[in-house]
Amino acid sequence: MKRRELLKGGSLALGGLLLTPFSAKANIFKEEFGGKKAKNIIFMVSDGMSSGTLHMADLYSRRKLGRPSHWISLYEENLVQRGVMDMASASSVVTDSAAASSSWGGGQRVNNGSLNIGLNGEEHLPILQKFKKAGKKVGLVTTVPVTHATPAGFSVYTKSRNSQEEIASMYSDLSFDVIMGGGHKYFDAAQRKDKKDMYSVFRNKGYSVARNKAEMNAAPQNKPLIATFDEDGLPYAADRNSSSFMKNNIPTLAEMTSRAISQMKDHKNGFVMQVEAGKVDWAAHGNDISALLYDQLAFDDAVKTAMDFAQKDGNTLVVLTSDHGNANPGLIYGKKVNDNFDRIQQFSQTNEWILQGLNPTDSVSTIKNRIAQANAGILITEDQAKEIQSYYAKAKMEDGVYNPRHLPFKLLSQIQQEHTSVGWISMDHSADYTELAMYGPGSEKMKSFMKNTDMHTFLLKAAEVENKF
Amino acid sequence: MKRRELLKGGSLALGGLLLTPFSAKANIFKEEFGGKKAKNIIFMVSDGMSSGTLHMADLYSRRKLGRPSHWISLYEENLVQRGVMDMASASSVVTDSAAASSSWGGGQRVNNGSLNIGLNGEEHLPILQKFKKAGKKVGLVTTVPVTHATPAGFSVYTKSRNSQEEIASMYSDLSFDVIMGGGHKYFDAAQRKDKKDMYSVFRNKGYSVARNKAEMNAAPQNKPLIATFDEDGLPYAADRNSSSFMKNNIPTLAEMTSRAISQMKDHKNGFVMQVEAGKVDWAAHGNDISALLYDQLAFDDAVKTAMDFAQKDGNTLVVLTSDHGNANPGLIYGKKVNDNFDRIQQFSQTNEWILQGLNPTDSVSTIKNRIAQANAGILITEDQAKEIQSYYAKAKMEDGVYNPRHLPFKLLSQIQQEHTSVGWISMDHSADYTELAMYGPGSEKMKSFMKNTDMHTFLLKAAEVENKF
Repeated sequence: MKRRELLKGGSLALGGLLLTPFSAKANIFKEEFGGKKAKNIIFMVSDGMSSGTLHMADLYSRRKLGRPSHWISLYEENLVQRGVMDMASASSVVTDSAAASSSWGGGQRVNNGSLNIGLNGEEHLPILQKFKKAGKKVGLVTTVPVTHATPAGFSVYTKSRNSQEEIASMYSDLSFDVIMGGGHKYFDAAQRKDKKDMYSVFRNKGYSVARNKAEMNAAPQNKPLIATFDEDGLPYAADRNSSSFMKNNIPTLAEMTSRAISQMKDHKNGFVMQVEAGKVDWAAHGNDISALLYDQLAFDDAVKTAMDFAQKDGNTLVVLTSDHGNANPGLIYGKKVNDNFDRIQQFSQTNEWILQGLNPTDSVSTIKNRIAQANAGILITEDQAKEIQSYYAKAKMEDGVYNPRHLPFKLLSQIQQEHTSVGWISMDHSADYTELAMYGPGSEKMKSFMKNTDMHTFLLKAAEVENKF
Repeated sequence: MKRRELLKGGSLALGGLLLTPFSAKANIFKEEFGGKKAKNIIFMVSDGMSSGTLHMADLYSRRKLGRPSHWISLYEENLVQRGVMDMASASSVVTDSAAASSSWGGGQRVNNGSLNIGLNGEEHLPILQKFKKAGKKVGLVTTVPVTHATPAGFSVYTKSRNSQEEIASMYSDLSFDVIMGGGHKYFDAAQRKDKKDMYSVFRNKGYSVARNKAEMNAAPQNKPLIATFDEDGLPYAADRNSSSFMKNNIPTLAEMTSRAISQMKDHKNGFVMQVEAGKVDWAAHGNDISALLYDQLAFDDAVKTAMDFAQKDGNTLVVLTSDHGNANPGLIYGKKVNDNFDRIQQFSQTNEWILQGLNPTDSVSTIKNRIAQANAGILITEDQAKEIQSYYAKAKMEDGVYNPRHLPFKLLSQIQQEHTSVGWISMDHSADYTELAMYGPGSEKMKSFMKNTDMHTFLLKAAEVENKF
């Protein structure tokens, strides 16, 4: 039994001993530290983060940067409550992101693929709509389209997570205060089926619209903001770090988080926002180690941004978690594992960059050079390069080039394994319970094991918002 | 900052606020609950337990038994402190069990393969010897040979973990109170190189010797006990459950734990014991899902045994952890994952049993039938059976039959994957930080992130044993 449990007062059995009540002391304690309301909530999701992803990012930080990751430093300093969360959906022990976000957002397990639509068609009002009705400002920040499953699960209900144009339309009715990430194509008149210019709709409702970092920085703090910085997902952090153009035009997750906080922090009723590192999941689907590691580190920087604010503010609950495991990556035992892991420090591009940039006409030496350029000089063999080349020759390039499953991501990660020591169980989600950590008011009520749907009422209770909608 | 940190008194910054001291209250609190000495310590290691192993065992418990696993129930009830532990060795981010146990046992990181011998040949006195010198009873309980790396790392120093006959000899000089597990061949005169009958040596020093469950139960409580229940490792729990002979003759890990506790619990200075589920690691090396799952569940039963005692006793620190990840198993997303996972509930034998029982002369139908018998009727294809068969034809049976790496464990787990949805990153250890939980006196001092070597002094401090040896 943790001490905080004892603080509730009354007679409690501890280790077989029956202890006397101490309600007087408990009350004093409660007055000083307990029962504080979470005026603000920053809910941070590294999407598809297996425990190995969190741990490798920390190992990287220690070996390369000489410090722990911001997330794990919270453990070292005992600043947070720690737990695990069972993220199963109604239909499966292995959830997808839509059902996962719905479990938090709507408080009910739904089938994979659904967004807050129950098994009998019930519509579950999502949590950001509840907080908005309660008078708070609310926001969404992500590295994937703002209409993607994880932000959408906090925001809307719809039978299919794939109707992203429809979700973009729904957003325009929600009066959310900040919406930032990727997904231009779902708002763009030229690309939408209905040819509607969603940006005009938002502008007519008083929003600023930003399409790059400068516009984000220039947008007034007193107007709601919608920003889409790329067509679909934002670039991976590893590729962004190697491109001046991307660095100049596309903000990092931490920069978006900082902007969202500054825009909402002075609201008298507080704010609730979701921050998602959505491409950690995409990287795991691609077994793409530099994409995975550097996007997790970018998430970690956003954790610092949120924690710096929360520690100063004193009224902010910060939740760190993931919605499911993905590919369960890990460093594998072997004589070269230290050197191999440290070599990833020098990787300058993702496998996405490597494979999207190759064509069926590319020679074996072009393939080898491109991989060497991206992967700190690693030389793959002629046979390995030929195997990659043969894939392009037989792939249906006309319809597959943007779908990771149509490019040889698996083959490339298998070839890289001897140089990186990183292994993966698959290219899909896993049933592992997810890591959960909380800081700030309300966190003291967290249990070390939580069912995903309990998060919904937990957040409302922490903010003292009655669940009557 | 956790509340328990606040209890130390003094001025503390919380969420940016400077709080006033409250030392009077803190002292009252400390008198009632804090600073209690751990008279007894039960240190429990599920060897090679990746987070997915812990989580799958809990999922199994919930779906099959209708209750959480005992380990995770401690999280649900908030009875324990939770953390992760960095288990790296001196030579690698991925440790082996010898260096891992040495980090706890000797308080120093050593090279993989070493048992408490430092980089310059320094000998680190192992923690059970320290506790023995401090007047406590000490014990070892494991499902692998008692001379194996994890028990040995708490007990002896030697350059090589592989010198198990030598380690058996060393044990006879230690005056430990309980030594139970496998490894008969390292004590048996007929099998030792020096032809020494180690059991006679132990008997001459006042030990009881047990070779089966009845002898264990009949052994007097007032004499030290050494028990070896099998030649090498004990049978996997899954195979034991299907064999009356094994069930009658070989105790479970929980039964051994219970016996060890009852033998030491009345000692006036208390006791310290290590309990290891060593074959969880062996199962992960074999990508052997029924071996892994049921041995983890057997460990979980031992957790209950230890916790039942500790909760009643009130003076016992229980530590639950693992020494490293292994193979990072997990359930993979897919339509059949629930059914597939539940099918494992019906598996009656391990892959070890399947593969050790096949011969080069076995027909394809014999192979198919044996797998169907072990795996709840799963029918592998003719081609898959032929692939297994071909392996036996080319394998060097004369020297390889007891080494998992010489039998087609990997192939079999790959064939099973479509029926079980379980994936593995490799057949070896991973660098993942390990799960850590503590109950009882001292646990309130645990941080959520711990370096493995800090465990050594933590245990001594919790028991108020000065580290002067």
